[in-house]
Amino acid sequence: MGQSSLNTTRLHVRYSETDQMGTFYNSRVLEWFECGRTELMRQLGVSYRQMESRGAMLPMIESHVEYLGRAVYDDELELTTTVSMSGKARVRFEIQIVNITTDQPLARGYTVHAITAPDGRPIRPPQWVTDAINGP
Amino acid sequence: MGQSSLNTTRLHVRYSETDQMGTFYNSRVLEWFECGRTELMRQLGVSYRQMESRGAMLPMIESHVEYLGRAVYDDELELTTTVSMSGKARVRFEIQIVNITTDQPLARGYTVHAITAPDGRPIRPPQWVTDAINGP
Amino acid sequence: MGQSSLNTTRLHVRYSETDQMGTFYNSRVLEWFECGRTELMRQLGVSYRQMESRGAMLPMIESHVEYLGRAVYDDELELTTTVSMSGKARVRFEIQIVNITTDQPLARGYTVHAITAPDGRPIRPPQWVTDAINGP
Amino acid sequence: MGQSSLNTTRLHVRYSETDQMGTFYNSRVLEWFECGRTELMRQLGVSYRQMESRGAMLPMIESHVEYLGRAVYDDELELTTTVSMSGKARVRFEIQIVNITTDQPLARGYTVHAITAPDGRPIRPPQWVTDAINGP
Repeated sequence: MGQSSLNTTRLHVRYSETDQMGTFYNSRVLEWFECGRTELMRQLGVSYRQMESRGAMLPMIESHVEYLGRAVYDDELELTTTVSMSGKARVRFEIQIVNITTDQPLARGYTVHAITAPDGRPIRPPQWVTDAINGP
Repeated sequence: MGQSSLNTTRLHVRYSETDQMGTFYNSRVLEWFECGRTELMRQLGVSYRQMESRGAMLPMIESHVEYLGRAVYDDELELTTTVSMSGKARVRFEIQIVNITTDQPLARGYTVHAITAPDGRPIRPPQWVTDAINGP
Repeated sequence: MGQSSLNTTRLHVRYSETDQMGTFYNSRVLEWFECGRTELMRQLGVSYRQMESRGAMLPMIESHVEYLGRAVYDDELELTTTVSMSGKARVRFEIQIVNITTDQPLARGYTVHAITAPDGRPIRPPQWVTDAINGP
Repeated sequence: MGQSSLNTTRLHVRYSETDQMGTFYNSRVLEWFECGRTELMRQLGVSYRQMESRGAMLPMIESHVEYLGRAVYDDELELTTTVSMSGKARVRFEIQIVNITTDQPLARGYTVHAITAPDGRPIRPPQWVTDAINGP
């Protein structure tokens, strides 16, 4: 019981996300990872918007991406995102992206985030954040 | 005498700015227009960074672009930017972009900006801003 | 009868689309306009992906945007898009964006597109394109 | 003798690269890494533009970024880029970015690239590419 800590969401590749190699530009994966994080946190009941409004920011401190396949404009992508605490003060998201249109893996990776006040100063993770991430 | 109110600056097309049509994506022109505005204001002695730090923001309220030619990765572009007051409370930039690599016009257009406090509320244009824009 | 030539679609503002002024960056509107065009053409039965695969490109030749309001990360936007032929050889989209979260208008504008072969050469608009745009 | 295999280049943070947290958005680092790669390859005498025109693409297959500091609009960044072959068929770039305006490290990381034909099929690295990368 409790909310699932795994989120699946879909999006279409925008024309603005492609490049002249005829596939998506590499940095877009980090933007799509953001979509996965946003939807997972919303599902867990602690939307990132709400976190920021309560003074807890999650600036990225590390990212890792493996590029596994191609995608063109309008291909539909499925993002699968999970989250966990990494030590006592960091949050780690793992993400996989599959190109649904071609049925091929597109990318996988992870991002690690500090927990800070709006001024960038690290803070102790609020209980309501760790509870949501660790689950019931 | 006094500073020129016309700025010319150059940049190379980034791979991230191209799309699968094999030319630049249309929204990049507005990002390049920003580069032109930045360099012109710096040349006039009122960098936009300095304006913001003194509490005067220039949010865009209108943009117009005509797309005249193509560009691929690494083409060199030349931006020519001019600025003027539009009425008493707005700033207008006119920009032309030429693709130096192909010697063809790439785009031209204008942007109009309000003058506001950091909270978005319109303010009377500071004298040091209108002086810089109107010239000596 | 026939498909409606007006499309309404929604999206959330991505963190990557905001800027340090605390609202969306101006060029994002052109990227959101693309989302509106994509969904309208899909609804009309001639997806832009399909158009390109059949050799008819719609490169943008003009854009105009009026910026009417602000938006922050995760605000939900509603795009309303219409399309019409402009003369015999151009396609014109009109778009309005409302910030659903704040219930305020965000932007409106239009884009004009040529109809070309993949190499950029203008072509006579295919009948199946003009039929879809003009409606039954 | 021979060209140096280390390149240093500078750029200013664009307003479009910032976000509402008041620093650069995380994906921009991968776009700046591209600027570093472009200038290093140009310095080595095998510009990436030239590589593509001769049929050798370098699609990214892995990226890793550590985020070390903040930057706002118009901060000047210095990128230091090196390149080496990774095994017989891959190219690896290492990059460090320092925020010159604040004199603080901003990010460091690496990217790994396959060598492919324009259709994405892996190819044996051309001699003129490995010569340039390995140096004299």
